[in-house]
Amino acid sequence: MPVNRAIRKASDNGVVSHHESSPRQVAVVLFEDFEILDVFGPLEMFGALPDQFRLTLVGPASGPVRSAPGPQAISQYSYLEAPGAEVVLGPGGPGTRRLATEQVFLKWLARWASDAEFITSVCTGSGLLAAAGLLDGYRATSNKRAFAWACEQGPDVEWVPEARWVEDRNRWTSSGVAAGMDMALGLIARLHGDQVAASVADGVELEWHRDPTWDPFAANNGLTPS
Amino acid sequence: MPVNRAIRKASDNGVVSHHESSPRQVAVVLFEDFEILDVFGPLEMFGALPDQFRLTLVGPASGPVRSAPGPQAISQYSYLEAPGAEVVLGPGGPGTRRLATEQVFLKWLARWASDAEFITSVCTGSGLLAAAGLLDGYRATSNKRAFAWACEQGPDVEWVPEARWVEDRNRWTSSGVAAGMDMALGLIARLHGDQVAASVADGVELEWHRDPTWDPFAANNGLTPS
Repeated sequence: MPVNRAIRKASDNGVVSHHESSPRQVAVVLFEDFEILDVFGPLEMFGALPDQFRLTLVGPASGPVRSAPGPQAISQYSYLEAPGAEVVLGPGGPGTRRLATEQVFLKWLARWASDAEFITSVCTGSGLLAAAGLLDGYRATSNKRAFAWACEQGPDVEWVPEARWVEDRNRWTSSGVAAGMDMALGLIARLHGDQVAASVADGVELEWHRDPTWDPFAANNGLTPS
Repeated sequence: MPVNRAIRKASDNGVVSHHESSPRQVAVVLFEDFEILDVFGPLEMFGALPDQFRLTLVGPASGPVRSAPGPQAISQYSYLEAPGAEVVLGPGGPGTRRLATEQVFLKWLARWASDAEFITSVCTGSGLLAAAGLLDGYRATSNKRAFAWACEQGPDVEWVPEARWVEDRNRWTSSGVAAGMDMALGLIARLHGDQVAASVADGVELEWHRDPTWDPFAANNGLTPS
């Protein structure tokens, strides 16, 4: 279903689409010890609309990158060679703890992502965005079991403990792991309408939580009163 | 949390565990044009318990295997070199349509999987298991939008249109894509208890559908009256 983005722009919260007619590039930032569902949950949703989204994986070098539980995915580009993308997605995973202290990586991320139409994260990926300064002055959320760590990465971020995902202008950050799928569908809904997102959810047999404030896991993990 | 499988065997429906104390190997059968969430959804769940499960990807050859929407994962072993595994998982995806006609592949799959403690599938992966004869005489389910195709692969299978997943002895088959995560948690619950599975679900912030008969997608797709 081709969408005329020029017409849709008015409802896009003022976000300027860089390419009015070609598919948007969704680029995921891989690193050693990434969380696999953070990456492949959202990519399943975007990938269901090949006329609207193209998927790219970028990593420390082009080639294999090991996930936290072992399986490896292939990054097509090294960070330094990665072309710009309309949608940048930073996943979480144990590897974020080390990366959030690597200044060369954070400087690259801040520079490379800054031109994106949407800067998004899943789980502790928001800690990386925060450490790179990309969330300063924005509202954001993160994984409920690593929330304190995420907050430490961005003292100038307004952290929201209870949220499936938080959207603030063009920064979209989701809660832990599985929440990334709901956020991806939310972004698809924003860009292409609720019906398209609902059809993707039905096709992959996912019960889509469309309400970004739905979050039983905040109370489950002691971030809000239960 | 180490589990003594010898003690648990009595509640395992007579399934014999091949390794009483070491982690179970979960081996996923990759092929060109596999569905990414069929693979990485369940692996996220099993991978959350590294003391209980080890993850292996096998493919036509060791090396990169392309998913349907483009991203590539790395198979550690070729089909012919693949060691046996306690849990065999056959994902779905567009690539199943071609593979279900490849007799060399189907013969390998039937032989290699037959020793597994559990033979499982997600989505149209049950069509592959059926084409290999691995579901003859069993109850099984499949993706709701490709149900007729799956049925054609196994005339001697009792196909169940309305189910999140179907368990029949050691064959566990799930409905489309996202259903694989619920099934994986169901299998974890069977092996290690409900609390362990619920803790995994909470950790990945997934609303686990524990009831295998929960399936709104059967009616959504015209397989049962709505």
